[in-house]
Amino acid sequence: MLVEFGQTRVMCTASVTEGVPPWRRDSGLGWVTAEYAMLPAATHTRSGRESVKGKVGGRTQEISRLIGRSLRACIDLAAIGENTIAIDCDVLQADGGTRTAAITGAYVALVDAITYLAAKGVLADPQPISCAIAAVSVGVVDGRVRLDLPYEEDSRAEVDMNVVATDTGTLVEIQGTGEGATFPRSTLDKMLDSALVGCERIFAIQKEALALPYPGVLPEPSEPKKK
Amino acid sequence: MLVEFGQTRVMCTASVTEGVPPWRRDSGLGWVTAEYAMLPAATHTRSGRESVKGKVGGRTQEISRLIGRSLRACIDLAAIGENTIAIDCDVLQADGGTRTAAITGAYVALVDAITYLAAKGVLADPQPISCAIAAVSVGVVDGRVRLDLPYEEDSRAEVDMNVVATDTGTLVEIQGTGEGATFPRSTLDKMLDSALVGCERIFAIQKEALALPYPGVLPEPSEPKKK
Amino acid sequence: MLVEFGQTRVMCTASVTEGVPPWRRDSGLGWVTAEYAMLPAATHTRSGRESVKGKVGGRTQEISRLIGRSLRACIDLAAIGENTIAIDCDVLQADGGTRTAAITGAYVALVDAITYLAAKGVLADPQPISCAIAAVSVGVVDGRVRLDLPYEEDSRAEVDMNVVATDTGTLVEIQGTGEGATFPRSTLDKMLDSALVGCERIFAIQKEALALPYPGVLPEPSEPKKK
Amino acid sequence: MLVEFGQTRVMCTASVTEGVPPWRRDSGLGWVTAEYAMLPAATHTRSGRESVKGKVGGRTQEISRLIGRSLRACIDLAAIGENTIAIDCDVLQADGGTRTAAITGAYVALVDAITYLAAKGVLADPQPISCAIAAVSVGVVDGRVRLDLPYEEDSRAEVDMNVVATDTGTLVEIQGTGEGATFPRSTLDKMLDSALVGCERIFAIQKEALALPYPGVLPEPSEPKKK
Amino acid sequence: MLVEFGQTRVMCTASVTEGVPPWRRDSGLGWVTAEYAMLPAATHTRSGRESVKGKVGGRTQEISRLIGRSLRACIDLAAIGENTIAIDCDVLQADGGTRTAAITGAYVALVDAITYLAAKGVLADPQPISCAIAAVSVGVVDGRVRLDLPYEEDSRAEVDMNVVATDTGTLVEIQGTGEGATFPRSTLDKMLDSALVGCERIFAIQKEALALPYPGVLPEPSEPKKK
Amino acid sequence: MLVEFGQTRVMCTASVTEGVPPWRRDSGLGWVTAEYAMLPAATHTRSGRESVKGKVGGRTQEISRLIGRSLRACIDLAAIGENTIAIDCDVLQADGGTRTAAITGAYVALVDAITYLAAKGVLADPQPISCAIAAVSVGVVDGRVRLDLPYEEDSRAEVDMNVVATDTGTLVEIQGTGEGATFPRSTLDKMLDSALVGCERIFAIQKEALALPYPGVLPEPSEPKKK
Repeated sequence: MLVEFGQTRVMCTASVTEGVPPWRRDSGLGWVTAEYAMLPAATHTRSGRESVKGKVGGRTQEISRLIGRSLRACIDLAAIGENTIAIDCDVLQADGGTRTAAITGAYVALVDAITYLAAKGVLADPQPISCAIAAVSVGVVDGRVRLDLPYEEDSRAEVDMNVVATDTGTLVEIQGTGEGATFPRSTLDKMLDSALVGCERIFAIQKEALALPYPGVLPEPSEPKKK
Repeated sequence: MLVEFGQTRVMCTASVTEGVPPWRRDSGLGWVTAEYAMLPAATHTRSGRESVKGKVGGRTQEISRLIGRSLRACIDLAAIGENTIAIDCDVLQADGGTRTAAITGAYVALVDAITYLAAKGVLADPQPISCAIAAVSVGVVDGRVRLDLPYEEDSRAEVDMNVVATDTGTLVEIQGTGEGATFPRSTLDKMLDSALVGCERIFAIQKEALALPYPGVLPEPSEPKKK
Repeated sequence: MLVEFGQTRVMCTASVTEGVPPWRRDSGLGWVTAEYAMLPAATHTRSGRESVKGKVGGRTQEISRLIGRSLRACIDLAAIGENTIAIDCDVLQADGGTRTAAITGAYVALVDAITYLAAKGVLADPQPISCAIAAVSVGVVDGRVRLDLPYEEDSRAEVDMNVVATDTGTLVEIQGTGEGATFPRSTLDKMLDSALVGCERIFAIQKEALALPYPGVLPEPSEPKKK
Repeated sequence: MLVEFGQTRVMCTASVTEGVPPWRRDSGLGWVTAEYAMLPAATHTRSGRESVKGKVGGRTQEISRLIGRSLRACIDLAAIGENTIAIDCDVLQADGGTRTAAITGAYVALVDAITYLAAKGVLADPQPISCAIAAVSVGVVDGRVRLDLPYEEDSRAEVDMNVVATDTGTLVEIQGTGEGATFPRSTLDKMLDSALVGCERIFAIQKEALALPYPGVLPEPSEPKKK
Repeated sequence: MLVEFGQTRVMCTASVTEGVPPWRRDSGLGWVTAEYAMLPAATHTRSGRESVKGKVGGRTQEISRLIGRSLRACIDLAAIGENTIAIDCDVLQADGGTRTAAITGAYVALVDAITYLAAKGVLADPQPISCAIAAVSVGVVDGRVRLDLPYEEDSRAEVDMNVVATDTGTLVEIQGTGEGATFPRSTLDKMLDSALVGCERIFAIQKEALALPYPGVLPEPSEPKKK
Repeated sequence: MLVEFGQTRVMCTASVTEGVPPWRRDSGLGWVTAEYAMLPAATHTRSGRESVKGKVGGRTQEISRLIGRSLRACIDLAAIGENTIAIDCDVLQADGGTRTAAITGAYVALVDAITYLAAKGVLADPQPISCAIAAVSVGVVDGRVRLDLPYEEDSRAEVDMNVVATDTGTLVEIQGTGEGATFPRSTLDKMLDSALVGCERIFAIQKEALALPYPGVLPEPSEPKKK
């Protein structure tokens, strides 16, 4: 599926494969992981391919890990058996907020993967997902708290925060940083207020997207393991 | 721009950067290069990311080199001055013929880049492109010559050939191979006949695409060098 | 200098080198960067060397970036001229909280480096550091908020948060995460209360450490650039 | 064995090892693969070692794949059981046409390996090789079709084509390319005529080489698997 | 344990893990290996991390191999069963002679590991170590033979030699080199005399260190294999 | 040139390039370096290519460094100006003693390179080589000292020593090691006696090889820098 937030466009795809990583074998638990990447031409100035450089950059790994962690907060890994759901988030066009757009889209892809597994009769529990997950970025620009900054504003934000939340009102992850600056606790509170309002709006959009007829384009994996 | 051939979808984007690779400096000539890659979820079974593996596979490099060579056959590199045009071809969905779809789309992206450079007043010659470039794959399945095979047929083809041709009737590149089999020269001739007919059809489509109003979404580079 | 928090021991060393990374040249600004690493035998079970594996893991890069960002929040980079301060944080023994111990020790190493630069007469502003920086980790274990968890407790924490703060009462960075769980905003608030109390205690210890006579063991760099 | 074409000298050696790559296990089929490489001092200007650079270049991989594909066209992989024949083609001195010389020599090394396997009593079918394989390069220089160009002429060829053929008159692979130029179909036909004549001459030489007493210097592998 | 020779400080730690490398499996023999590394800030001028460069340098590998070989000369690998003892030698501060200090400290760490294995009841032979191992560096500076040169003198030595010896009077390894110079055999003899005297002194110190009460801080491995 | 010692065959080639490595620029001194490598099929059991593995092994680097050091002991680097002589030593067939054969052949290749530079009129001093360099391996097998062991004997040697010497009777490098064993100083003396006798024999052979008419096949470099 394709997520668009302003000029930011991220393609999120779930692939189901049988089996789990070696360190998790014979646990009876499944695994959800994510890989984030940016196409070279996604940014204003073309950036080199990480495959050509021969290594994955720190920022890329950091975001991949964040997406995976966020998704694992909403799913009962015992319910999917020893299967792995890999979510690929590829940024086709970038204009700020790519990591939060990726999390938001990855959640929808995850739900599609679960629908697919349910149809295959693989699920131990018919409702392994306990809540919806969405993410927003929020920043302080020229002293004012602003939601989902486009790149031009993001690059001059004094404080930048990413919030991952659930539709049951709890938090999954919060990362606030003041590059080259610091911020009082009251600003943190204001940013958090704003972020939670933003998440509410996204939960509504996700629900609409998931209500559409099942697109059926999920890559058909080799028969997954029955639980 | 996005190229679609059946279920195959390739995103082709041109980026213009000032300067040329070190070995070409002070030659007065520009450079055109291409990078081909496949998103992990583009294929039926998810394939690992080359950035994560830490190296670019042989097939990927082979196709990147083929696209670059094909494009350089139609352009006067002296006319663009010491600027580099990098074409990124990212396969979003693969169903056979990704390399020929990539060449076909890359040509359109190249023309857009030239239009951009012309608008900037950088070109020494207003028409640096001497002909159109298109490519098709052609194979022999169950003894019959077939154009642009989808993956399912491609994987059981006895002979597989890629043809890159110009709209002036000449050839740029021809690669025919019989994995696990050999083929008589008469089959080569029949495949070539079929391929050239296929290319004619593509040249018509390219012309239509290029007649559309200039989309203007080419990443705006730092001021390129005047010739 | 060596930082010890419980069984966790981190060696933090600052090296001053002339010049800045290419993308920062001719800006008149200096640069502060950090590299975090763990010795193979620092953990209970020996972990492989990243140099032998040929790549730096995601966690390592994430922490290195966090330390660098945190330090850059307290220093006026114009004051140190085009010089680079590299802080190496090597974990000799690990028992939870290595990243926050590293930040805390890195700040002291940074101050030592500034003292060294001041002695050399390189500083444009005699007080380029605007505040002290310290970090603590705080978690929720068995429903109770706890400061600086040792490894055994950390590994079963329901929520884990790292807070980087200044001695002027502001925040530099806050990262809270609930692996496999979510948490209400009220827990975030309680964890933050606890973290800020913890930071106060560390600021007192840092002051003592810095009051000791200058150890003079900082590696003597090649003459740094005068501003 | 050592192949010499003019100033080009390529060492081709076959090694037999028990077992096949993981993706082919339990298929009952063997595997034939090839690795091509150039010694640093083989060319006029010394080229860096790929082992020191830490990656195998695109050209090297492309040629290795071509050699492997070509050899697999003439052998019945079921007949050799689950054993792997690896052909190493190392260019000691390069003066044009190294890839076609490598294929030609690799075929002779392959036949030697089969003789060795036959002597061990491993073959299911005593004649697993269905035809001889040879390759030539052919180019157009100053408008004239020329066979097996030395480097000096090759580098100014307008069109360059490699043809792999069998001694039963069929084609295995054909790769024609016009770097910086295009060519009419009539030129393709003329090059192909010339190439097939060239291959005839090579088949005669191969036969002579294989009629010599078995040199017996093939590296003795660990006992291969009986079929 | 921490070894200090003048300003040189090396941390040597032994880790015991169950099992041996693949090529040694089912031999009934254990394995002893070593990894040497230098912290970036250990030298006067900061050196880049090998993990960041993505490869281990030649000097690092050479020394790691030397340490491993030296330790294997004094131990009966059958006695420890199929367990691996990995010795990590990390140079915290370098002032010449780091490799010989590492060997000297690694021996003490090895003895501690053996004590640990004995306590676990894993040893087939209660005394698997046949002799003590120590190493010194010796050089010729300004025509005079000198023991354990500090960095400043080492860098202008005409000849440099490392000697690894046992407390039974035999040699384990001797490496003498004259970078940019050669030396007569009589100089070799004098250096060897001096080195053996130096080793005697070290054996005495090692004995003292090992007489101290067992520190018990060896990382507790997963239960090693009983012999 | 090709060096053969028993079944061991090493190809040694010198390439001259203008300029020196960055750390040596503007010193007025030249540089001599060496790269050693083994073809995959050189050993009894095929070994994987280091280029395919993506890194150069410890043994390869160790030997490359040893060859370079040995050659630099006999040449006046000021005399060759800021030019680099790179010696490639590629083992075509290995049967013990490849490193010493490589040093011996590398010396001859170095002399040829100097002859070439002299003919170009680049040398500041017409005789920049002060002595001949040769190397032998010597071992103890079944208690007896033996020169230049073939692989079968080498692999069961109790002590193994490599000696690099000059024809003026001095030593350049000596490396003696007792893998899994130790040896008395008297054995060292006996091995050294034997090695020096072996070197005498090699110096005679080198002289003969160098007396042959200049082969003229040295790769012609781009005009080297005049001194």
